Amino acid sequence: MKPMFAERMDNVPKSFIREILKVAQDKDAISFAGGLPHPGLFPVKELELATSKVFESASTALQYSNSEGSAELRNHISRRYKEKLNLDIPISQILITTGSQQGLDLLGKIFINEHDSLIIEEPGYLGAIQAFSVYRPQFIPVILENDGIDTKALKKIFDTHNPRLMYTVPNFQNPSGISYSLEKRKEVAEILKYCQTYLIEDDPYGELRFEGNAKPSFKTLLPDKTILLGTFSKTVVPSFRIGWVVAPEEIMDKLIIAKQAADLHTNFFCQLIISQYFNLFNSQDHIKTICDCYGKQKNAMINAINKYFPSGINYTNPEGGMFLWVTLPEGYSTMNLLKISSKNKVFFVPGNQFYVNRTSDVNTFRLNFSGLNEKRIDEGIKLLAESIIELLK
Amino acid sequence: MKPMFAERMDNVPKSFIREILKVAQDKDAISFAGGLPHPGLFPVKELELATSKVFESASTALQYSNSEGSAELRNHISRRYKEKLNLDIPISQILITTGSQQGLDLLGKIFINEHDSLIIEEPGYLGAIQAFSVYRPQFIPVILENDGIDTKALKKIFDTHNPRLMYTVPNFQNPSGISYSLEKRKEVAEILKYCQTYLIEDDPYGELRFEGNAKPSFKTLLPDKTILLGTFSKTVVPSFRIGWVVAPEEIMDKLIIAKQAADLHTNFFCQLIISQYFNLFNSQDHIKTICDCYGKQKNAMINAINKYFPSGINYTNPEGGMFLWVTLPEGYSTMNLLKISSKNKVFFVPGNQFYVNRTSDVNTFRLNFSGLNEKRIDEGIKLLAESIIELLK
Repeated sequence: MKPMFAERMDNVPKSFIREILKVAQDKDAISFAGGLPHPGLFPVKELELATSKVFESASTALQYSNSEGSAELRNHISRRYKEKLNLDIPISQILITTGSQQGLDLLGKIFINEHDSLIIEEPGYLGAIQAFSVYRPQFIPVILENDGIDTKALKKIFDTHNPRLMYTVPNFQNPSGISYSLEKRKEVAEILKYCQTYLIEDDPYGELRFEGNAKPSFKTLLPDKTILLGTFSKTVVPSFRIGWVVAPEEIMDKLIIAKQAADLHTNFFCQLIISQYFNLFNSQDHIKTICDCYGKQKNAMINAINKYFPSGINYTNPEGGMFLWVTLPEGYSTMNLLKISSKNKVFFVPGNQFYVNRTSDVNTFRLNFSGLNEKRIDEGIKLLAESIIELLK
Repeated sequence: MKPMFAERMDNVPKSFIREILKVAQDKDAISFAGGLPHPGLFPVKELELATSKVFESASTALQYSNSEGSAELRNHISRRYKEKLNLDIPISQILITTGSQQGLDLLGKIFINEHDSLIIEEPGYLGAIQAFSVYRPQFIPVILENDGIDTKALKKIFDTHNPRLMYTVPNFQNPSGISYSLEKRKEVAEILKYCQTYLIEDDPYGELRFEGNAKPSFKTLLPDKTILLGTFSKTVVPSFRIGWVVAPEEIMDKLIIAKQAADLHTNFFCQLIISQYFNLFNSQDHIKTICDCYGKQKNAMINAINKYFPSGINYTNPEGGMFLWVTLPEGYSTMNLLKISSKNKVFFVPGNQFYVNRTSDVNTFRLNFSGLNEKRIDEGIKLLAESIIELLK
């Protein structure tokens, strides 16, 4: 029997990235396609010790738990917000989710009626496009400039639309590596102040800053309308799938109902392991180690680009995070570039994956620098440069 | 600002059970309300050993993984289906989910358009009602008789409807404890054979049989149209939130896209722990221990009901699982009974929670026998009997 699927699944994009990751698993391959933390930096011994502590209270650690998440872990998150961003977040406003990807799904579920308009950066985070697509919004992409979203274009949207949500990654955005300047943050907050729009600030990379100074969160500039998403995937461990949503009280109740319906609660055992890890170890030292490493890797990538790429190619130079963004001269397709470079077993993600209206011939692509060491980065960029030269011929 | 929520959230019931669980956490309380496995039966030492094995391959165990789930774990699941139910399930038809609750959400997401009809048992599993409600189907409840769903009523539905899905828990159903007889299974399969309806067989309790003989899965009787849901929450550990969906190939692709959009993948570290647990230990011995324990507890509950309850009260006597179902004489409200019994700190779940069209005055309720030892069960049923006598006065 040919199955009949729900209409909402008609336009949900399959993750091309996850498809590339499959071919890029070849040992000889050099993959800049992933978005993986460096596995050599996982705090293995520390997590092992934290885990053995958690087994001491096995009868609760292994049992079903509440949908909101571990109170102890939410207290840690609340304290971190105070220390790092001077934000006062009561734990009643924190919901633990199965990765911050689930936060996106739950927010889409509770907010988006079909055809509701939703503002997203262009290029934008693919996981958010996937999660929201299920609920069939009208995406309104707004160009991301070098210092943040195009606020002139943003302002105009409100003349004709009443968007339900605006989705941003203001620090070291995926895919571009771009961060919003303080001015852009203030302008965005000013524009949204008088609207019915909630702003989702997705901040998986904020702590991975290796240069420059932190900018204030939208939660400071637009406190009543900002919904924060966070994750431990980049700073502690990805496979545990533990993230969180910070939302105003009036939203939390609906989020919890959606959470119950989605998976009852997030893996409680691993919530406690992360909590114990914070009790036992200085997680800030560990984050500093990650930042030092990624900073060096980013520099290795920038140096290699300068050394090997032909002229006329633009790229971002992020102060943190895991990605940078390359723009070829107008008219060249990075899908074609991928075809060439994959013969050399070098992989990256073509830019069209990050546009809401995908065309097959954009001239941009994303490079990941967190997953490979400096030597491999140099080798890979050299090979990639050869492919670019071939494409531009 | 008063938030505007999506219409799909209008009628999603909040879990009353989870609310009861909060008040029932009092140490003096005797709660038959939960659906918790007995924490004394968790294989703690075994899981601890399995975990230390998993840490030996930390760089993959802690990294992001694929959306389908661990191939090794899916192989275990496939082998178990062969051994226990003589089913041939290739691992390409198995998707690991964040608890089987997520399986329900994903199936609702990919199949249900608003107003599509969906058949559900009455009384039915609350978690399924919640998960599906988000997608706004037209629920068609069909009475559950003592040997399974009312097949006469079921057959009639197809005269006027073309249901997208039928949801069943054929073994030791939650909330009723009822199992489908072989005859009923065959009748249901015969009715669905010529329709466009997929049958979801949710089987969290099938292995918890302490009496009688196993009946064939719908996957045997209606192989092309049956979607199976399974979980390790009742046989190994609940807090890991690891379940699975078995679906025909033509459905799997859409399920994986929905899974990516929902949470990328299920906690991979804990998938590997369960996999190692199966490698290292005889899980069947452990399941036998659980069954012996729950069988004794069920007998303690039946004996106490016979001893203390007034006459005129009906109850099911399940051959497995975790629940039984009590029916008071017509016209009495078990919401009122709960008000009385909670003064004595005895809790249960009133039957109206398990009906799609909830009324406040049904005469049924659910009792859980897995979470308490025999002595506490006897004490609790005695107190509950006093409350029933007071209600019936």
